[in-house]
Amino acid sequence: MEAIRWKDGVLSLLDQTRLPAEERWLDYTDYREVAGAIRTMVVRGAPAIGVTAAYAMVLAAREGADRADFAAFMAGARDALAASRPTAVNLFWALDRMARCWEKAGADVLRLEQEALAIHREDVEMNRAMGAFGAAVVPPGARILTHCNAGALATGGYGTALGVIRAAHAQGKVSMVYADETRPLLQGARLTAYELAADRIPVTLICDDMAGALMAQGKVDLVVVGCDRMASNGDFANKIGTYSLAVLARHHGIPFYTALPSSTIDLSLPDGSGIPVEQRGAEEVRRFAGTATGPEGIPVWNPSFDVTPHQLLTGIITERGVLYPPFPQSLKEGPSKT
Amino acid sequence: MEAIRWKDGVLSLLDQTRLPAEERWLDYTDYREVAGAIRTMVVRGAPAIGVTAAYAMVLAAREGADRADFAAFMAGARDALAASRPTAVNLFWALDRMARCWEKAGADVLRLEQEALAIHREDVEMNRAMGAFGAAVVPPGARILTHCNAGALATGGYGTALGVIRAAHAQGKVSMVYADETRPLLQGARLTAYELAADRIPVTLICDDMAGALMAQGKVDLVVVGCDRMASNGDFANKIGTYSLAVLARHHGIPFYTALPSSTIDLSLPDGSGIPVEQRGAEEVRRFAGTATGPEGIPVWNPSFDVTPHQLLTGIITERGVLYPPFPQSLKEGPSKT
Repeated sequence: MEAIRWKDGVLSLLDQTRLPAEERWLDYTDYREVAGAIRTMVVRGAPAIGVTAAYAMVLAAREGADRADFAAFMAGARDALAASRPTAVNLFWALDRMARCWEKAGADVLRLEQEALAIHREDVEMNRAMGAFGAAVVPPGARILTHCNAGALATGGYGTALGVIRAAHAQGKVSMVYADETRPLLQGARLTAYELAADRIPVTLICDDMAGALMAQGKVDLVVVGCDRMASNGDFANKIGTYSLAVLARHHGIPFYTALPSSTIDLSLPDGSGIPVEQRGAEEVRRFAGTATGPEGIPVWNPSFDVTPHQLLTGIITERGVLYPPFPQSLKEGPSKT
Repeated sequence: MEAIRWKDGVLSLLDQTRLPAEERWLDYTDYREVAGAIRTMVVRGAPAIGVTAAYAMVLAAREGADRADFAAFMAGARDALAASRPTAVNLFWALDRMARCWEKAGADVLRLEQEALAIHREDVEMNRAMGAFGAAVVPPGARILTHCNAGALATGGYGTALGVIRAAHAQGKVSMVYADETRPLLQGARLTAYELAADRIPVTLICDDMAGALMAQGKVDLVVVGCDRMASNGDFANKIGTYSLAVLARHHGIPFYTALPSSTIDLSLPDGSGIPVEQRGAEEVRRFAGTATGPEGIPVWNPSFDVTPHQLLTGIITERGVLYPPFPQSLKEGPSKT
């Protein structure tokens, strides 16, 4: 399963707002429309946003290649893409990496295309590496709870949290995946359930408010989620609801992991307090799959992410290995070789 | 606001499955259809189910008054109503109280009608008393989180948890009520937001997975919820999601209360492990208002309630006063007079 394709200079995105009812691919040749696709969540998930933004910069380079003000044009395109969504740091990471490329190579569209393809390919490779490392922490017969979608659809392919689940499932270790439906936009119901069912990985859908009762009944052995931005001490932003799960997991003594590529770590931030959390529109909460839920115009609080302090994490699964506390140290030094 | 009316021998229920989009009243003269209305949640909320069942027994008495096998007929009606929903103990409490009446008075429809009206009136009185006691634990400027709907719509009128909020609001103490939308049936969005907005009590709607982040940001001073059945040690069943909130409140040091009339206490149960928890159909989770949320046929876990251990409760708000730990003792002895 994949959600991002690049062919003959055209970026194609699987429209994740329509899944699972409809598998619709949208084609993009204008970086401005790609910024819109990120904003409206046609594509979502921190690594997938990074890969998409890289391709968008190739589209911008082709448009601006013959311009005298190529550098200024590219900087403008970069700013437009950077303004699409604030929380996932992979977006800025990918834009920075592409910028180093065009600042050095100039209007070499082919070189930029190779860089974007490398970002995409490396993302899949990192996911597979993190899957292999992460599978080692999954006990046999594991019942795993996850939130939102940190799968192939959220990345260049394979997935972060779902990559760990895929790898563990391939080793015969997964007896059940519980997927939080993840309100308001239902990425768990629409995307994770769809993605796991397509891969014939056993999945049961629950509402977000059922996770505590599920844990209390001893039905969860492990929680693994994705990550949109991690500070240098291990505090991390992920889809709203992740923090509640972390507290519930701690209360029940259940291991709680996040899986992320290095591109999701923001070493410029000492802790999670500096992570910008996107607030989204009220209609996402006021409506449910297109139907009004509550009274018209009711006030709503709708942060798209929350920040989980590193103290609630059992381990951080990366493409280099699994990091354990103390995270401020292990994030700096890398996984131990033991 | 009210959801149950009795006039000229006709029971009218405000169809809570249609709110807030449509205020539709349905009339009942057959107890069998009332059992169906409870099952399909036209009427819901433990005290409201009790009041409704009492009126249904009046309908049964009128139908069976001239029958030679009146007692057997009434016992059959009682069994049919008792089979409608398993968790809320008020249902069985009301059926027992009506049974004592017809077992003593026989086919005296007027006497049974007076008993049902008394149950209804007493429920409202208990709610008002519990509101007065509960308001005393609400600090000035309180921001209160609630789950599901324990309001006028869930009771004979005024509400349990929302009765406390109403009374505290009348004293000028409530700066904001946060209403969990309460998946799968969205009673928080559809009913609590509607009921509070109608009373001009400030309310903000959140998704269930946002409650932890809201607490972490210091935006919740108090949690108050209803109750569907309380065991004699204070363990209690309430709408799924209540337990998660209790754990989250404990983690953040936020006072956590439940409000309930005596009719919700089941002294036959030593603890919460004996409370039957209703499992409802998968379509409630798979769909909303006819729209699929996830893939067709995806397996679902859908318990309608969870059980919160008494250790997570700060206090129990009843019509006789507020009970504090140790609950096994205070539930037996009643509130202290201090």
